[in-house]
Amino acid sequence: MVSEDLLKQVAFIKEIDKLKYIQRRTKLMHSNRHENDAEHSWHLAVMTLVLAAHADRPIDVLKVLKMVLIHDLVEIDAGDTFIYDNLKNHTNTEEERLAAERIFGLLPKEQAEDFIAVWEEFEAGITDDAKFAKTMDRFEPLLQNASNEGGTWAEFNVDYQRVYDKKKAIKEGSTSIWEYAEGLLNDSVEKGILKKADPANETS
Amino acid sequence: MVSEDLLKQVAFIKEIDKLKYIQRRTKLMHSNRHENDAEHSWHLAVMTLVLAAHADRPIDVLKVLKMVLIHDLVEIDAGDTFIYDNLKNHTNTEEERLAAERIFGLLPKEQAEDFIAVWEEFEAGITDDAKFAKTMDRFEPLLQNASNEGGTWAEFNVDYQRVYDKKKAIKEGSTSIWEYAEGLLNDSVEKGILKKADPANETS
Repeated sequence: MVSEDLLKQVAFIKEIDKLKYIQRRTKLMHSNRHENDAEHSWHLAVMTLVLAAHADRPIDVLKVLKMVLIHDLVEIDAGDTFIYDNLKNHTNTEEERLAAERIFGLLPKEQAEDFIAVWEEFEAGITDDAKFAKTMDRFEPLLQNASNEGGTWAEFNVDYQRVYDKKKAIKEGSTSIWEYAEGLLNDSVEKGILKKADPANETS
Repeated sequence: MVSEDLLKQVAFIKEIDKLKYIQRRTKLMHSNRHENDAEHSWHLAVMTLVLAAHADRPIDVLKVLKMVLIHDLVEIDAGDTFIYDNLKNHTNTEEERLAAERIFGLLPKEQAEDFIAVWEEFEAGITDDAKFAKTMDRFEPLLQNASNEGGTWAEFNVDYQRVYDKKKAIKEGSTSIWEYAEGLLNDSVEKGILKKADPANETS
């Protein structure tokens, strides 16, 4: 007899296949093809394995992997939120909370609760594990945009200061990765693919 | 000063973006769209988190995650090998070994050696961790083909016995997942989406 638990787990495994259709704004390296959430989550997981030693404080690599592998599953229902979107607040929207309950709720109860707790820990971004997971999540699109002549920065006219303000979260998880990231932002300004705001156009 | 190690790690992280272009024969669930290796690797990683308790013998979940996340990277150079291909032997081709050396060789030496060892352990399929990783690798396309009216089984005219012979590797890692898988194979035969060979056509 196949257990009730396994049947629920298989239902969850089938459902999350949909993450492969959730398109992000960013594009693959040196490419015009949009990345999807499943590819993005895979990339963050391998980055976690490769870069773990750069964490400023001890991290539980297994926990961070869990975070990056599932952090975007709520987007199956709630859709991708663009980090430079001025209209939609990314953090813990009601829509995402309901999505977490529905999607993780397909799993056996104890496992569902565990996954929701891990997702909430990631979203809150307070623990060292969550900070390092967010370092990964901010670093990947930086590499992509820098490889794509500015990518979404250029496409959506996002200036250096706004990018800097979002990317400095990288520093919360790793000083050495931040050092690299800051250099890449400065290079991007020098190359003209990331613009500093024109002081004459400042509104306040 | 950004360390030499970090520069090498970033080069590796950029290089493996190419896994997102390696197309598999199998298609997404209930879909006509081919899956790529990055999406596949992500799916196996989440399946590992969800199904770990079904392993027959104790596994190191972090090690299994590492295996499934990197197991297909050699295909960036060597290309995808179709499991039912009669002409190409999948196991440890010289081409794949060279690919592993080139791709993992972008990393700092010690890390490169570690990743190559993990990949070789997966390929050999002898340890309990490798067996469970292979259980994941065989189980995902089974779910996909069953959802797609037989998928690659129908497309490439692969009969029940050949599918069974490949899928029974699932049993090496988990009796309970195998029980589910065997049921799904039998259902597929009943539905007519997986054919038993016609005894009249047997060649030996």
